[in-house]
Amino acid sequence: MKRKDEIKNRLDALREQMKLHHLSAFIIPSTDPHSGEYIPEHWETRKWISGFTGSAGTVVVTLDQTGLWTDSRYFIQAEEQLKNTGILLFKERLPETPSISRWLADVLEKGEKVGINGWVNSHQEVESLFHSLAYNGLNLVTMTEDIFDSIWEGRPELPSNPIYILDEIRAGVSCSEKISRIQKAIAANGASAIILSALDEIAWTLNLRGEDVHCNPVFISYLLITENEHTLYIQKEKITKEVRNYLKKNQVQIKDYAQLAEDLRTSNLSNRPNILQVSPLTNEALCKLSSQYTQTIIAPSPATLMKAVKNGAEQAGFRKAMEYDGVAMVKFLQWLEEAVPKGNETEMSIERKLFHFRAEQFGFKGLSFDTIAGYKEHAAIVHYEASPDTDMPIKSEGMLLLDSGAQYIDGTTDITRTIPLGPLTEEEKTDYTLVLKGHLQLQNAHFPAGTCGTQLDILARIAMWKKGINYLHGTGHGVGHFLCVHEGPHQVRMNHIPTSLEPGMILTDEPGIYKAGRHGIRIENTLLIVPARETEFGSFYRFEPLTLCPISKEAVIIDMMNDEELKWFNEYHQMVYNRLYPLLDPNGQEWLKKATTPLKR
Amino acid sequence: MKRKDEIKNRLDALREQMKLHHLSAFIIPSTDPHSGEYIPEHWETRKWISGFTGSAGTVVVTLDQTGLWTDSRYFIQAEEQLKNTGILLFKERLPETPSISRWLADVLEKGEKVGINGWVNSHQEVESLFHSLAYNGLNLVTMTEDIFDSIWEGRPELPSNPIYILDEIRAGVSCSEKISRIQKAIAANGASAIILSALDEIAWTLNLRGEDVHCNPVFISYLLITENEHTLYIQKEKITKEVRNYLKKNQVQIKDYAQLAEDLRTSNLSNRPNILQVSPLTNEALCKLSSQYTQTIIAPSPATLMKAVKNGAEQAGFRKAMEYDGVAMVKFLQWLEEAVPKGNETEMSIERKLFHFRAEQFGFKGLSFDTIAGYKEHAAIVHYEASPDTDMPIKSEGMLLLDSGAQYIDGTTDITRTIPLGPLTEEEKTDYTLVLKGHLQLQNAHFPAGTCGTQLDILARIAMWKKGINYLHGTGHGVGHFLCVHEGPHQVRMNHIPTSLEPGMILTDEPGIYKAGRHGIRIENTLLIVPARETEFGSFYRFEPLTLCPISKEAVIIDMMNDEELKWFNEYHQMVYNRLYPLLDPNGQEWLKKATTPLKR
Repeated sequence: MKRKDEIKNRLDALREQMKLHHLSAFIIPSTDPHSGEYIPEHWETRKWISGFTGSAGTVVVTLDQTGLWTDSRYFIQAEEQLKNTGILLFKERLPETPSISRWLADVLEKGEKVGINGWVNSHQEVESLFHSLAYNGLNLVTMTEDIFDSIWEGRPELPSNPIYILDEIRAGVSCSEKISRIQKAIAANGASAIILSALDEIAWTLNLRGEDVHCNPVFISYLLITENEHTLYIQKEKITKEVRNYLKKNQVQIKDYAQLAEDLRTSNLSNRPNILQVSPLTNEALCKLSSQYTQTIIAPSPATLMKAVKNGAEQAGFRKAMEYDGVAMVKFLQWLEEAVPKGNETEMSIERKLFHFRAEQFGFKGLSFDTIAGYKEHAAIVHYEASPDTDMPIKSEGMLLLDSGAQYIDGTTDITRTIPLGPLTEEEKTDYTLVLKGHLQLQNAHFPAGTCGTQLDILARIAMWKKGINYLHGTGHGVGHFLCVHEGPHQVRMNHIPTSLEPGMILTDEPGIYKAGRHGIRIENTLLIVPARETEFGSFYRFEPLTLCPISKEAVIIDMMNDEELKWFNEYHQMVYNRLYPLLDPNGQEWLKKATTPLKR
Repeated sequence: MKRKDEIKNRLDALREQMKLHHLSAFIIPSTDPHSGEYIPEHWETRKWISGFTGSAGTVVVTLDQTGLWTDSRYFIQAEEQLKNTGILLFKERLPETPSISRWLADVLEKGEKVGINGWVNSHQEVESLFHSLAYNGLNLVTMTEDIFDSIWEGRPELPSNPIYILDEIRAGVSCSEKISRIQKAIAANGASAIILSALDEIAWTLNLRGEDVHCNPVFISYLLITENEHTLYIQKEKITKEVRNYLKKNQVQIKDYAQLAEDLRTSNLSNRPNILQVSPLTNEALCKLSSQYTQTIIAPSPATLMKAVKNGAEQAGFRKAMEYDGVAMVKFLQWLEEAVPKGNETEMSIERKLFHFRAEQFGFKGLSFDTIAGYKEHAAIVHYEASPDTDMPIKSEGMLLLDSGAQYIDGTTDITRTIPLGPLTEEEKTDYTLVLKGHLQLQNAHFPAGTCGTQLDILARIAMWKKGINYLHGTGHGVGHFLCVHEGPHQVRMNHIPTSLEPGMILTDEPGIYKAGRHGIRIENTLLIVPARETEFGSFYRFEPLTLCPISKEAVIIDMMNDEELKWFNEYHQMVYNRLYPLLDPNGQEWLKKATTPLKR
C-alpha cells in the first residue's frame, strides 16, 4: 500500500472512533503518560497517524480536515513528510498561524466536542487546553481509554526489559527511607497516599533502574505509596526474582501496569486513602480516575526536589563518573588531533569513536542523550544531530562543537567542548572568548541561600551582551544521578524559575554563541553546588566543577580575559590535570600536560 | 488628660462604633486611600488611636484587647510609646509572633466579623486579608464610610494647597494626548472608563503638580476618565482660575473630592460606562462602590508604565536637574571638607547645610525624601534619620553616609555618597571597594530587550557575595519626573519583578554594605536606560548615568578593581568634570578637578 493511502486509512479509522464517541475533533500530542523527554514507540501515535517523524508536533483531526502544528526546526521535514497526505502544515510562532484552539473555533460549531487521550496529556496541559477551548465555545472531552488501541494494528508493545537494583552504596539512601520521607512530605498537605508517575522519580525512590527509554535508565511504571503498603504497577516480565524479593522486603507489592486504572475504577486499592496526592505533571486520565476514586489534591511531587539534592554517596558517584568520562574525552581529543589531518573523519565517524572510548569505561550504560557533533556552520543549529544526509567531512579548519554525555552506574555526565581544528577568524576567537568568560563567571559565582537560577543567569551572558550577542536557550539544568540528563526543578535561565539553589544540586553551565551559516560555540561543565561559608550575613554557596576535561586554549584571546578569569581558567586546568593524570597512560599524560599548561599574558 | 487615658478614650469610642456595626474586631493599617509612601495627617488613624508614631505598623482592636504589629526597626520605639496603654506589641517576623489573622482566630469565635475601613486598604490587600480570615473561619466586613469621622474630634482637615500647571515644554506630552493614550490602553481590556487613584498618576496625566504630601509634589484627588469627558475629584479651594481654565480646555470638569463616592452610590456620573477599570492598588471602598455602580474590571493602571517611560523632554529635564543637584553636592562636599576639622558639625547641621545649597538652585521645590545622614555606626541603620536624640558630632575620622535628593521643576534627584572623613580600617576600605565594584558593574551593564531588573540585580552583588556579604534592600527603583522618588513598576532586586526594562525608564543603582555597630556604605547614582545597539540578536540597551557628583576615591583599594572597573570609574569622573566644570566658580572648579582626577594603579 502506498504511504498516502496508509495515512488515509489510519485517519479514517480514527474518524470512525471519533463518530462513535460524538467527537468533532481529536488532538494528538507528542507526549506519553509519564511526561518523559524520550517516548517509547508504543505511544508515538502522532507519528503513526501522520507519518511525521520530528520530535515535536501536534496533530489535530476533525471529521474532514487534519492539521499538524510544529516548530521552525521541522518546517522543511514536515513539508516533505506530509506531501500528498492532505494534512495541513501549521507553522508555529509565525504571526499568520492560528493556535489550535483558534483554528478549531473556526472550523467547528460552538458546543462541539474535542477529544483527547487523557493518558498522554498532563493535567497541567489539559487545564490550559480546557480553558482555551472553552473561551472559543468548544467542549473538551478527556478519554480515559486509549482510542488507538482499537485502531492501531500491530501497535508496538510496551518495552519489557528487565529492571535491576542500584546498590545502596551508590544510592546512598535506602528505598524505605526515601518512601518515609515522601510520606512525611505529603502528610504536610494532608494526604496519606501519592501516585508517582514520573519514571525518574519512581526509579530514584525505589533505587531501581531499567532500560525502557532511550538514553534514560528508567522503566515504565506507576508507584502508589500509601501509609502501610505500596504498589509498583509494572509489566511483570520486567521483574527478576531478585527484584521481586527486594520489593517485597520494602513492602512494595507488584501489580500489572494496566491494573492501576482498573484499581482506581473499581476502588480495588487495599487501603483507600482519604486524600490522594498527584502531581500536576501526571497524565489527566490518572488524575480523573483518582478524583473519581477518592479526594485528590494536585500538588508537585515531593520526590522532584528530594531527587534534585544529591546525597554524599551520589556526589561521590558523580565524581567517579566524571573521571571515567574525563579519561574517555581526553583519549578522544588526543585521537582527534591525529585523525583529522588524515582526512577520513566526518561528524558521524567521530561520534562513533567517542562512543567507543566511553564504552570502554567502568560501569558504562549507554549515552545520556544523542550526541551533538556539529562542524562549522552545523554547530550554529542548536539541536543539530548529524545524519547520513547532513554528515560533513571534518578538515583541519574551523571549529567542531561536541555536546555529549553518558550514563555510568555511578552517575550521569553532560559535557560540551568546542574544538578549534585549524586557523580561526578574529570573530570566531572573539566569540569563543566571550563564551569562555561567561562560562567561568558562572562557574566561579558565590551566592547566598535562597538565590534562584534566574538571578545567576546573567553571569554567563553579560560579557557577550556588551557586544550585542545573546543565546536563546537556558544556561543550565539539573542532571540526575544515573538518571535523566535533564532534571528539574531548578534551572538557570532568563525566564523566572523560582526554585532556590541548594547544596547538593547539580547544574550545567553551558553558555553559547550561534551565528547562522557561520559557526556555533558552546562550553559546558557540570557543576555541584557546595557550601562556601557562613558569615553574619548567612549561608553562602558556590560551585564545584565536576566535569574533568581540558577546555581548548587555542581560540582564547588573552587580552579579553581579566586577571580573575585567567586565574580561574588555569585553576580549573590544574584541577583537571591533578585528577586525570594518574588515570592515563604516559602518552595520554603527556597530552594532558600540554592541554592544561597555564595560559599567560 | 494623661496620654494613657486619651488612648483609652479613643479605643472606647472606636469600640462603641464597632458594637453599632456588630464588629468583633477592627484592623487599622498605616495606609491611605491613594497607596502613597507618605500619609497626610488626616489619615493617620493608626497613630491617633495608639500613640505609636512609627511609619509602619498595624493596630488591631477587639472588644477587650488591642495589639500593634510592627517590624524590627520600631521594636524599641513601640515599647516606649505603648507603655501603660495596655496595647500589646506583636513583633513581626519573629517565629513566636502570630499573624493578625491567626491571632484573631484565637481570640474570636468562628463566624465573628472583622471590620476594616475600605478607604485605606487597597483591593489587593483586602483580597489577601479576606482569604486569610476566611481560612480561619472569620468574616471580613469592608466599610465604605470612614468610621473615624464620627470619633476623631479635631481630625485634621485634608491639606488644601493650591495646585499648578507643569508647562508642556517640561512635560513633553500634553494632558489630552496622555488621556487619549490611557483611553486606548483601557479599550484593549474592553473598558471605556477608568478611575485613577494613585496621586502621581493623576499629576502625571494632567501635567499638574501640588503640595499636599511630604516630599511628593502631588495633590489629593481622584481622576475619572471616560470616553467623552473627565472629572477631577478634588477640594475646590485648590483650583486656581488658571488651572480651572486649563482643565476646562482639556474636557476635565471639577467636582468635590468627597463627591466621587456619592456619584458612584447614586449613579450620578454623566455617561455611565459599560465597563469601568480600576487598579488592584485602588482602595477597596472605591472598588466596591464601582462594582455596585457598573461592571468593573480590576487591572493595573496603564498610566503606571506610561509614566515610568520618560519622554525626551522629561529626559532633558532630568539632565538639567542633575546639573543643579551636582553643583549643590559639589559645593556641599567642598564645604564639608573644610567644616569638619573645625569641629562644630553634627549629622543634623550638615543636613541643613546641604538643604541650603540645594535651595539656591534653579527650580528647587523641596526635598524628594527625608535626608539620611548617618555617621559611623549610624550608617549601618538602613532607614536612619538623625533626630535631636541621636544627632552625632562629626569628626575627622570614619565615614559619613549621605542619601539625599531634591525636587526640581525639571526633575527629581536621588543620590548617595559615602564620604571618608579621616583614616579608615582595611575592612572599611574593602567594603567600600566592594560596593563601588557592584555599583560600577550594574551602571555599565548592557542587556537585551525583555530583560527584567531581577536578572541584573546580581551584577551589583556578586563581588560582595564572594566575600560572604549581602544587603537586604533592593538595588534600584524607578524615579518620577518631578514626582515621587520611588516609582514602579520596574525595580532591580533579588525577588522577582517581571516588568521589562525599557529605554526611557529611570533606575537608581544603590548597592550597600551594613555592619551593625560598625559602619554602613552605600553608593547611589540615578541612571537612564538608553538604546545601546541593534544586532542580528535584537535590541540591546544600556545605562546613561544621570547623577553628576564625584565618588570619593580615598577609600578605594585599587588592587581590588579590575581594569574595566578602573576605566569605568575614571570615565564617570571625566563626564562629571566635563558637565559640572562650566557651572562652578574657580574655587569649585579647582576642587572638582582634584576630586575627578583619574585613579591609577
